[in-house]
Amino acid sequence: MRQSKLFTKTKKEAPTDEVSKNAELLIRGGFINKEMAGVYSYLPLGLRVLKNIENIIREEMNAIGGQEITMTALQNPELWKKTDRWEDEKVDIWFKTKLKNDTELGLSFTHEEPLTNIMKNYISSYRDLPCFVYQFQTKFRNETRAKSGIMRTREFIMKDLYSFCKDETEHNEFYEKAKTAYQNIFKRVGIGHLTYLTFASGGSFSKFSHEFQTISSTGEDTIYIDGSKGIAINKEVYNDEVIESLGLLKESLVENRAVEVGNIFTLGTRFSDALDLKYQTETGEFKPVFMGSYGIGPARLMGTVVEALADDKGIIWPESIAPFKVHLLSLGDNEDVKKEANLVYDTLIKENIEVLFDDRDDLSPGEKFADADLLGMPYRLVISSRSMKEQGIEIKKRNEEKGKIISLEELLKIFKLEPRA
Amino acid sequence: MRQSKLFTKTKKEAPTDEVSKNAELLIRGGFINKEMAGVYSYLPLGLRVLKNIENIIREEMNAIGGQEITMTALQNPELWKKTDRWEDEKVDIWFKTKLKNDTELGLSFTHEEPLTNIMKNYISSYRDLPCFVYQFQTKFRNETRAKSGIMRTREFIMKDLYSFCKDETEHNEFYEKAKTAYQNIFKRVGIGHLTYLTFASGGSFSKFSHEFQTISSTGEDTIYIDGSKGIAINKEVYNDEVIESLGLLKESLVENRAVEVGNIFTLGTRFSDALDLKYQTETGEFKPVFMGSYGIGPARLMGTVVEALADDKGIIWPESIAPFKVHLLSLGDNEDVKKEANLVYDTLIKENIEVLFDDRDDLSPGEKFADADLLGMPYRLVISSRSMKEQGIEIKKRNEEKGKIISLEELLKIFKLEPRA
Repeated sequence: MRQSKLFTKTKKEAPTDEVSKNAELLIRGGFINKEMAGVYSYLPLGLRVLKNIENIIREEMNAIGGQEITMTALQNPELWKKTDRWEDEKVDIWFKTKLKNDTELGLSFTHEEPLTNIMKNYISSYRDLPCFVYQFQTKFRNETRAKSGIMRTREFIMKDLYSFCKDETEHNEFYEKAKTAYQNIFKRVGIGHLTYLTFASGGSFSKFSHEFQTISSTGEDTIYIDGSKGIAINKEVYNDEVIESLGLLKESLVENRAVEVGNIFTLGTRFSDALDLKYQTETGEFKPVFMGSYGIGPARLMGTVVEALADDKGIIWPESIAPFKVHLLSLGDNEDVKKEANLVYDTLIKENIEVLFDDRDDLSPGEKFADADLLGMPYRLVISSRSMKEQGIEIKKRNEEKGKIISLEELLKIFKLEPRA
Repeated sequence: MRQSKLFTKTKKEAPTDEVSKNAELLIRGGFINKEMAGVYSYLPLGLRVLKNIENIIREEMNAIGGQEITMTALQNPELWKKTDRWEDEKVDIWFKTKLKNDTELGLSFTHEEPLTNIMKNYISSYRDLPCFVYQFQTKFRNETRAKSGIMRTREFIMKDLYSFCKDETEHNEFYEKAKTAYQNIFKRVGIGHLTYLTFASGGSFSKFSHEFQTISSTGEDTIYIDGSKGIAINKEVYNDEVIESLGLLKESLVENRAVEVGNIFTLGTRFSDALDLKYQTETGEFKPVFMGSYGIGPARLMGTVVEALADDKGIIWPESIAPFKVHLLSLGDNEDVKKEANLVYDTLIKENIEVLFDDRDDLSPGEKFADADLLGMPYRLVISSRSMKEQGIEIKKRNEEKGKIISLEELLKIFKLEPRA
């Protein structure tokens, strides 16, 4: 895409009320717009990142047998009363609204209740199990404070998967698959090396739930990491008994701040009991369905990537989720340079390489370099009088200090050897 | 996908409170789930249709220069007070909610206000214009009655594009392009032959707005069609003067019920004046930006396709939006039949042909045929003892009476000659 056509522009300053690094950089880069505290719109560059993350998650959920649906924000209180989650005293993050006839409705903060209710139409026999259903859907959470940029917001897209199994054994088998799928996701979006499977508080049906925590100084959680085993314990369950039960040693655990980027949870029969989701076994008995839930917020992941990987010049996107793979800069007023830059642009487009082309006339080289650093595409290509003299294109990765001049043929060879992850 | 794995199943009956044909067929087919009046979830088959429609719309919007974003549902009243659209007396379809600190927020029913406000960050000069921005985003509308299935709901995805131009001339140029793009969309989703560009009431800045109306006995609108010219007049502006001004003759106009499937509207400076969106001209003057809006609801389109094309056995999906191109049925218990059906399934998958494979063991041929008719995939393939005897596969289009037996090679040739529209 030609940057002269992109309607967003970078800014020198972020809003003064924005304290988080992710929001500051994303707003300055024109990735997002702050509508109010904790509510952000996604502009073209930001939406491209979000969709890339969603697609990675979707692929991993499909690979473990997930079937995609979309539920609704508007919620009928009746279902939530049955699970005792309707009253504001029980759940303090509801946004509620009203129909014209004064009937109160909720805006969902999660979807166990409506999905369990849908499944009553389709699950009646052991032959209908197991099944795994997920969605990307907007959650509304009436957070009292929202100051972590796009990492804790009042309205956000969440991927939530729910598993429906015959019993705990079948559940555990899927739960392990989901764990691996989650680890694949964090690896693919570029924060695998910073992310730890973390033991956190469970419920009636399991001693622990599992969080995926990414090390970040701005994280809201404290975790204790065993680096050699690649696992961690959340402070909320951190004690001698737990350390021992996990076969860990207190002296090898290191305290860190971290962001919860995913969470998987054994629900057991909490919701199937309350909403009467039963199936008939092979021997004719009726049993409640055994459930699990698996959440991940694409926007929080996006914010975490910014927090974890940015440097003091701006964002550094991993290639797998970058809005464009390449940022092509044409420098100066020289007509030959412009012609060459257009040629390179057309060639990359023809080769299906995603490229943002800074073809703007009214910016200095310094301004273009600063924009490229802020926006953070993995590869920067520069066409200038200098590169023309050396009969090539200057290429530099965003995380490298210095570029080098190569030919268009060499460039295409590099990009073909390194397809999008 | 194997139908034995699909978690939804067809039903003989729809909910008794559901009066519309689209909802009845879509619920019976397991495409959607009714959460409450006017609120529907999309299950796997339904979501596939919706995404196919969205992708067609997206392609057409990108082709005319649209840049995709996503705004939010939660709305700050301040912006809407400036355009005098906050009070319930002015806009009677608001859903409203409250923050913890009692600040009232709205759930957007449209997005002129927030987008105009965003554009103030990016439009300041004639060089920034024109630009065209769109989204697929959830709208909330507090409808008093909701009884048309997925065609008029309280919560739905809408594609809304907004154009920002220097003046009316530049606006009109884009407006004509948008008209053509809309016509392409209706053609591509399979209702082009039933859809008319319809003159409807305009605003301060144009005599007419333009609706796209699809003939349907269940439509809420009445239009007067000139079949030879392919245009129509909405009853709301139908009078002698309008007929004459459009160069039409009263005697050639035919009254019809119709569904509004799209709407394009010249907004002029209504919002840029109220929210102070100005640009500086080449000569240094400040002028308000000239705007337009262009709406289309993918779910309403989906419902309209069902209403317009279904027969008494079920849905008939156009190939461009069908959840799967092919419904492959394996009939009976014969092991050779099952083996052959699996072979055909694997071959189609390998050829990237989207296929739903009815591999279920516990259903009679009659039940499988009835399901195939209800679900409405464009091609039905049958493998049975009979087709095996004739050494082939029975193929029948959903809208044909009788099938014929062809070989696998012939089948692949047909599908390669008719790629997805």
